[in-house]
Amino acid sequence: MTDIDFFFDPKSIAIIGASDSFRFGYTTTKYLLNSKFKTFPVHLYKTEILGHKAYKNIKDIPESIELAIILVSNEHVLQAVKDCVEKGVKGIIIESAGFAETGEEKYINIQNKIIEIVKESKIRIIGPNCVGLTNFYNEFTSSEVEFNRVLKGGISIIAQSGVLGNIFIDWGSSQKIGFSKAITLGNKIDVDEVEMLDYLNNDPDTKVITLYLEGTTRGNDFKQILKQMTKPILILKNGRSESGSNAVKSHTGSMAGNDKIYDAVIKQNPGIFRVNNFYEMFNIAQVFSTQPLPKGKNVGVITGSGSLGILACDEIERQGLSLAKLNEDTINQIKAAIPNWVSIKGTIDLGPSMMTSLIPSIKAVLTDVNVDSLLYIFSVPQGPLEHLNFSVSPYFRLMKKLSKENNKPCICVCFGSRWCFEYVLKRASQFGIPVIDRIKYAIKAFKMMYEYSQYLERKDN
Amino acid sequence: MTDIDFFFDPKSIAIIGASDSFRFGYTTTKYLLNSKFKTFPVHLYKTEILGHKAYKNIKDIPESIELAIILVSNEHVLQAVKDCVEKGVKGIIIESAGFAETGEEKYINIQNKIIEIVKESKIRIIGPNCVGLTNFYNEFTSSEVEFNRVLKGGISIIAQSGVLGNIFIDWGSSQKIGFSKAITLGNKIDVDEVEMLDYLNNDPDTKVITLYLEGTTRGNDFKQILKQMTKPILILKNGRSESGSNAVKSHTGSMAGNDKIYDAVIKQNPGIFRVNNFYEMFNIAQVFSTQPLPKGKNVGVITGSGSLGILACDEIERQGLSLAKLNEDTINQIKAAIPNWVSIKGTIDLGPSMMTSLIPSIKAVLTDVNVDSLLYIFSVPQGPLEHLNFSVSPYFRLMKKLSKENNKPCICVCFGSRWCFEYVLKRASQFGIPVIDRIKYAIKAFKMMYEYSQYLERKDN
Repeated sequence: MTDIDFFFDPKSIAIIGASDSFRFGYTTTKYLLNSKFKTFPVHLYKTEILGHKAYKNIKDIPESIELAIILVSNEHVLQAVKDCVEKGVKGIIIESAGFAETGEEKYINIQNKIIEIVKESKIRIIGPNCVGLTNFYNEFTSSEVEFNRVLKGGISIIAQSGVLGNIFIDWGSSQKIGFSKAITLGNKIDVDEVEMLDYLNNDPDTKVITLYLEGTTRGNDFKQILKQMTKPILILKNGRSESGSNAVKSHTGSMAGNDKIYDAVIKQNPGIFRVNNFYEMFNIAQVFSTQPLPKGKNVGVITGSGSLGILACDEIERQGLSLAKLNEDTINQIKAAIPNWVSIKGTIDLGPSMMTSLIPSIKAVLTDVNVDSLLYIFSVPQGPLEHLNFSVSPYFRLMKKLSKENNKPCICVCFGSRWCFEYVLKRASQFGIPVIDRIKYAIKAFKMMYEYSQYLERKDN
Repeated sequence: MTDIDFFFDPKSIAIIGASDSFRFGYTTTKYLLNSKFKTFPVHLYKTEILGHKAYKNIKDIPESIELAIILVSNEHVLQAVKDCVEKGVKGIIIESAGFAETGEEKYINIQNKIIEIVKESKIRIIGPNCVGLTNFYNEFTSSEVEFNRVLKGGISIIAQSGVLGNIFIDWGSSQKIGFSKAITLGNKIDVDEVEMLDYLNNDPDTKVITLYLEGTTRGNDFKQILKQMTKPILILKNGRSESGSNAVKSHTGSMAGNDKIYDAVIKQNPGIFRVNNFYEMFNIAQVFSTQPLPKGKNVGVITGSGSLGILACDEIERQGLSLAKLNEDTINQIKAAIPNWVSIKGTIDLGPSMMTSLIPSIKAVLTDVNVDSLLYIFSVPQGPLEHLNFSVSPYFRLMKKLSKENNKPCICVCFGSRWCFEYVLKRASQFGIPVIDRIKYAIKAFKMMYEYSQYLERKDN
């Protein structure tokens, strides 16, 4: 494994093309200059940037620099890279766009010249055409992540570009999903997903890896590293269609490749799963990173809505899992606590009796040996939830306790207005119970985690 | 067509089992007693409910009653229905649960006795085991809808039970989706989806119908009415799996039936579309009810993120549509307004140049004859959106204007934190542009609307 720690915890930083007005790079400049990270702004004309002395060239900085972040426009990047080599920096993040992805010879040539510099020197480069990376544990970022808003957690991201470097981190944080590292690789002229997978496999803060892939140029190495991984990986591969594949080319200059080959490679590895969209990817990753692995296929379902319970049954069967058949004892325990009109033959459909019936139901289901995981479907209209002193915290407290004692994963799927979702999310997340807005993702999470637990068992034997 | 208008606009109402403490039915009782609808509470013991004189029996009410809402527990429903018949009411909504869906003979028998009463009298019944209906135009509801929060619009709902009678209305309203009628039918001992489809087909406020179906007992009539419909219908059919099909039985006592038959029936009718989940159903319905029908298959894509643009290309191809090939003129117009690194070969990937490039891009794309619809992918991190004076309203104002002038539907798909989504939604909805969080639903909407527009054209010729 190569040492690329300096990308994640740089001892000193130069920002080439530091910005003091609101445009691309401003947020990064402002954040790093005022952070604990020793940072020097570099600017061709300005002598001061946001109150910090600015240098005309990185070579003018009187101290040694470990990491350079390049933000200047594409035509100036090659010179900046040359200066970095002369300065002796260890690594560069080139965020500027406008290289091979444009399809124009002039810019392809610039990119190729930078590749030659990488080959001739020891310098390591991330990018170009990316937003670099974020380390949620030491709070280093070359992107637009604001640490007062995001959450630390067990999920790491490897991606191409901005949307996963900041947009989905914004989204994840508003879903109480916590991250470890977010890495965007852009056109990948040097550091790529193979090296980053290896790095994250050894990162103690990373529990599960999400990989958004537009294509890889190192097919064999990619296959090899997937085999060596000891953490679950969720892969989203784009560019399946012809126009999508063309778009990949003009996005990061990569080749999308034959989708069937990627599919086969992913299926060969039991700990590696293909997902269909970003929401699915992060929702499932969150369950992986916060819940115990289920020991079997049997999903217990407690629902406030019959229709949604039916939808859950359909999804459980589609994914090859089973609706848990409750013990006689469990059924009697629940029956003692519910009105006669409540249906508990398949799913436990509490309807409007939830307030009184939920605690005994959770207890009975999570202690039933025929149940391996719990799906709790929350659907209370906003009116009652607002007007009534309706405390949902005890449900999630009990789920956490029994989930831990019995090693069974729990997910709450919440339906309703955004206000309702926030209400439930705030309380459930205090007890580490993931809240999702799709039954499908919850059931897929149970399925993948069950497969993963079976794989670990086989490996141990 | 039978006259069932009194269910939607009752001249006088009795609430049997009116509730003055916070349990099922309280919200409805409180709302109707204080509404413009003439409402009388009926209660076995109480002489006053929320400041209104209560009657021991519906027969004691000194005025004629058009609609009775029954909320009493299952064992008392039969007597209440008999009283209603004697009183001469036109219709009853039975919300109480605990009948055929329990699978217990005792309760099945009660349901059968009520069915006999329906047959012998002229009385019409909705339910049991439902939350009745809501008319968003005159603000009548037997459910828990709060009219200060919801929006009037062109979408009507026919469903089984609560989750569509209130939960998804809460959700829809927080997405700025407007409704016309929401109808829940429960165990359907009398009024069913066939009659309601007919009713809504003649309702001037209904532009598009969403139907959540667990099963129908009138297969031939159902096929017949689908043929006669003159409005687009989106159908979600549950209970495809064995456990799901069992759950249908214990939810509303219906038979799920053979899923393939439903699928075939739906496919036979060009204006009728099957959807896969509630979110998809309402997001697509909103586009149908607010946007013009596209004349062709060519989708123009303007995106702030390359990755999401690729995802859109994949989805466009999967749905059988085409990524629009822009006119030379359009490309030149956009090129004049964008930096050299922006990619406009397939999707128009503006990246961080959005602020300056978006207005000319929208203008060029929506006036291009090769473009039939516009997908605009919004992905700006929360930080810049918060700190910068970033006004998105002009984009949506322009979209509205050009969409109207050129008869081209527009959808904004927004990614990011919930705060970002709210920010965009608030502004886009002022100009009637739908905001969705999934590219898939947007493309599916364009596809279904294109098919619908072709169907209308064939019909006209």
